[in-house]
Amino acid sequence: MLSPLRVGVAGLGTVGTSVLRRLDGQSGALRQRTGRDIVVTAVAARSRDKDRDLDLTPFQWFDDPVAMARSSQIDLFVELMGGSEGEAKRAVQAALESGKPVVTANKALLAHHGMALARLAEANHAALAFEASVAGGIPIVKTLREGLAGNQVESVQGILNGTCNYILTRMEEEGLGFAQCLDEAQRLGYAEADPSFDVDGFDTAHKLAILATLAFGVALDISSLHVEGIRGITPADLSAAHELGYRIKLLGIARRSENRIDGRVHPTMVPKSSALAQVGGVTNAVTIYADAVRELTLIGPGAGGEATASAVVADIADIARGVRSAPLGMPVDELEPTRVMPVREHEGGYYIRLNVRDTPGAVARIATRMAERGISFESIVQKQAPRRGGESGTVPVVLITHRTHESALGAALDAVTIDGYIADKPQVMRIESR
Amino acid sequence: MLSPLRVGVAGLGTVGTSVLRRLDGQSGALRQRTGRDIVVTAVAARSRDKDRDLDLTPFQWFDDPVAMARSSQIDLFVELMGGSEGEAKRAVQAALESGKPVVTANKALLAHHGMALARLAEANHAALAFEASVAGGIPIVKTLREGLAGNQVESVQGILNGTCNYILTRMEEEGLGFAQCLDEAQRLGYAEADPSFDVDGFDTAHKLAILATLAFGVALDISSLHVEGIRGITPADLSAAHELGYRIKLLGIARRSENRIDGRVHPTMVPKSSALAQVGGVTNAVTIYADAVRELTLIGPGAGGEATASAVVADIADIARGVRSAPLGMPVDELEPTRVMPVREHEGGYYIRLNVRDTPGAVARIATRMAERGISFESIVQKQAPRRGGESGTVPVVLITHRTHESALGAALDAVTIDGYIADKPQVMRIESR
Repeated sequence: MLSPLRVGVAGLGTVGTSVLRRLDGQSGALRQRTGRDIVVTAVAARSRDKDRDLDLTPFQWFDDPVAMARSSQIDLFVELMGGSEGEAKRAVQAALESGKPVVTANKALLAHHGMALARLAEANHAALAFEASVAGGIPIVKTLREGLAGNQVESVQGILNGTCNYILTRMEEEGLGFAQCLDEAQRLGYAEADPSFDVDGFDTAHKLAILATLAFGVALDISSLHVEGIRGITPADLSAAHELGYRIKLLGIARRSENRIDGRVHPTMVPKSSALAQVGGVTNAVTIYADAVRELTLIGPGAGGEATASAVVADIADIARGVRSAPLGMPVDELEPTRVMPVREHEGGYYIRLNVRDTPGAVARIATRMAERGISFESIVQKQAPRRGGESGTVPVVLITHRTHESALGAALDAVTIDGYIADKPQVMRIESR
Repeated sequence: MLSPLRVGVAGLGTVGTSVLRRLDGQSGALRQRTGRDIVVTAVAARSRDKDRDLDLTPFQWFDDPVAMARSSQIDLFVELMGGSEGEAKRAVQAALESGKPVVTANKALLAHHGMALARLAEANHAALAFEASVAGGIPIVKTLREGLAGNQVESVQGILNGTCNYILTRMEEEGLGFAQCLDEAQRLGYAEADPSFDVDGFDTAHKLAILATLAFGVALDISSLHVEGIRGITPADLSAAHELGYRIKLLGIARRSENRIDGRVHPTMVPKSSALAQVGGVTNAVTIYADAVRELTLIGPGAGGEATASAVVADIADIARGVRSAPLGMPVDELEPTRVMPVREHEGGYYIRLNVRDTPGAVARIATRMAERGISFESIVQKQAPRRGGESGTVPVVLITHRTHESALGAALDAVTIDGYIADKPQVMRIESR
């Protein structure tokens, strides 16, 4: 048997303590599966005295994670501190520089410094593993990097943020508004006090950037993504979606479009029959379209200490077995530059909800404006008949377009707005049918 | 860069030719992902002259796969011939004996000789990879063996046979009988001329035996599984299931129950809201319940040349990167013996459809017989009111039991049969709610 793998864990929050318990509880099975003992020898955290219901005496204590990363007492550095800068980054760099493999759950660190860290890992022949950084317990990194190695991936799309999916699910089920469901999510611990990172789509974007690199062999570049969040979604949209056979999900979508990458995070109308539409609550899911497997969907827990620890431990086990992959799937210098397809060039079906001023002929005039730009409709739903006469009310009109250009749609809606037939800004959502 | 990996492919049917095309078409990406060239140098098949729309001149031809397996012209042997005995087995043995890694899609070979072959692989320090043998393009072997290495798996259950799922889906959608849907599946090429292997559950059992070993670290033992097929399912069952909020799926289910394995293949009632219930047609799906991830579901193509080739190529790529795992997840000698939980000890909810003789008090009498064995009901559906008087007709009655013992249920139904209140054999199906 090989010598024991000595592990140092930096960060002892929910995930860190779950990793320690799991490495201990599963030590026998891990020995059988990897052929060697995996032993935590050192830990680092901000405060030693915090109550963690965990005996830390077996481990060497480090106040400074960077010192632990460089220590000769560990063979593998596990980074569970979080944050894209500061100590987490310095400690990961220090570990890689000293040739130690690193396992991290830190999506922000990866999204912002993944290229430089992967290059450092390659130069030092050290592994850099990050299964836990995307979609928690779902083995999506392994699936894209290894399981689909023989495929040309066409697109990856997923529900990558449990907070947003919880809020949208509750809004749909209960007919409640965004703010009320966000409050509820915060009370239940599913959303942070400052929810922006989740509900404005940034968390999804971090994860999507990582997936796009693994799927397409392009440089990791979060700035190339178009990002919209879910604050603008209303119960009216959810009920219109329901009637038309759709659900609304915040999706991260990356698609290869000729030589460019179409990478977007936005609320999306998905057909109820699709696998992603079935996924409710805080659960995550990813669908991959690729030339050989056609369609593969993975559904599982996107967050939580135990689920994230599952991914961290799997990475540790891979390293214990001696698995060596290029961190980003192939050497950093062989990744293509990310050529972005701007979202205004997007083509697809659209959902449009308009508050139309209740004047005779308004809907016909709007449809004409659309037709002038070549836009036609799969369905038009107008709930109340417009009242004849000069009343000043509005009627909600929901349109589903056939496949069209985003730029043509933008121009048509500008014209409709100038015409004065609509009372406020149109609500527009992209439809993703595969 | 490492020296090229020289591959020999035995069996040039749909999967074999897909593998050759895919290794060729993806050669650049595979080189980037594995750090070495993967080159097919030799092929073996029954007939050289069969039209395969493929240029075989670059490859050394072998009529005898065993000779190819031993040849110094290859570093890796790919077995795509099929069959649990004969040449496939001899060739795999020959390759392993000469220290060559083997990739196979052959579930029958694995299910019947997996233990001996894994032992041979270990003794010769050669890899034995078989992702393609279970659920086609779904990376379920990798997920169980590597992705969930830090989990204690509680159960694995899946739709592992596309033919059966296609037939059940069509029966449900169209209200057709089994025989008619089987005909249709045969016409479409989804079912063999002799459908027994698929529809009687044996194919699912082969795959389930492999999954159970990977999930629980128990000896591979197909004889330990309880196997029922789908021939007895009627449109009446599918429509009763629908009304009660269930679908019927042929599932392979393996669960750890204390120190025993509860392994079963049978038509199963699953709640419509479950992930597996959503999976229609020839698609496969597997749900894993485990302590850290709780619930993880993978959905994808279970068969077809390209999907199977995807799994074969992923295994080849892993071997090219130098990945070495124990074939069955851990050394064969460390696998526990499979202690079987007999299906008569099963506990759960049951669906029961009875043709009850139309005599006064029959249903009440049946319920009493059940109550005598401690069996109570979640629902009782009797479509037509029994006609009063001495008529000889029957009425269909559908019962859903609360959790009960299979042996108690069997005894109660025997008593009901002896009482003479039912016209023919009761239809009984297990309900799987997680």
